[in-house]
Amino acid sequence: MENIFHGVKARLDEEEITELLSRPGIRIERIVSTGQASPPDFWYDQPNDEWVIVLTGSAGLAVEGEAERTLAPGDMAFLPARKRHRVVWTDVDRPTVWLAVHFGADLR
Amino acid sequence: MENIFHGVKARLDEEEITELLSRPGIRIERIVSTGQASPPDFWYDQPNDEWVIVLTGSAGLAVEGEAERTLAPGDMAFLPARKRHRVVWTDVDRPTVWLAVHFGADLR
Repeated sequence: MENIFHGVKARLDEEEITELLSRPGIRIERIVSTGQASPPDFWYDQPNDEWVIVLTGSAGLAVEGEAERTLAPGDMAFLPARKRHRVVWTDVDRPTVWLAVHFGADLR
Repeated sequence: MENIFHGVKARLDEEEITELLSRPGIRIERIVSTGQASPPDFWYDQPNDEWVIVLTGSAGLAVEGEAERTLAPGDMAFLPARKRHRVVWTDVDRPTVWLAVHFGADLR
């Protein structure tokens, strides 16, 4: 994929994750959401750090112990390993394209 | 900085690099260009891998041994360590905002 917006679908049954680059210690992904959210009471609890930016659309991000944040295009978030978080909602009118960078010495 | 487009200036005397995240093995930067290019005959020759995406504006990217590529919003490029490359031009009408991810086990 040469352009991150290539082939973004307006409607998906499930969130779509596409690996853009993977090397020891780092994985870069495109995530496309079209209204999907984390299941009720589901929290991500990841072994590695993650850094995300929303490129199109919008989303509600909840991080344990913090106020819910609305992410619009250009908004960034750092999600440290083991910091529980969930996606409360994503835009239903347009695709939300996220760029996610997962990293850590032990990430394969 | 919570939004990558925050405080982007329309004109800069020099390219502006802002560190967004830095950890052992990874550094994420925002780069803003307003018409700047690599000096004539200058080639980047970096000890670490770099992955870039253009978010706004446009740029001409030359990678040694490859055809020059025009990068528009959403276009991505992987620049392996020691792969010589240069920025031939950047948009003079609007700021070019790049997101750059530098990585490698020995990156501090």
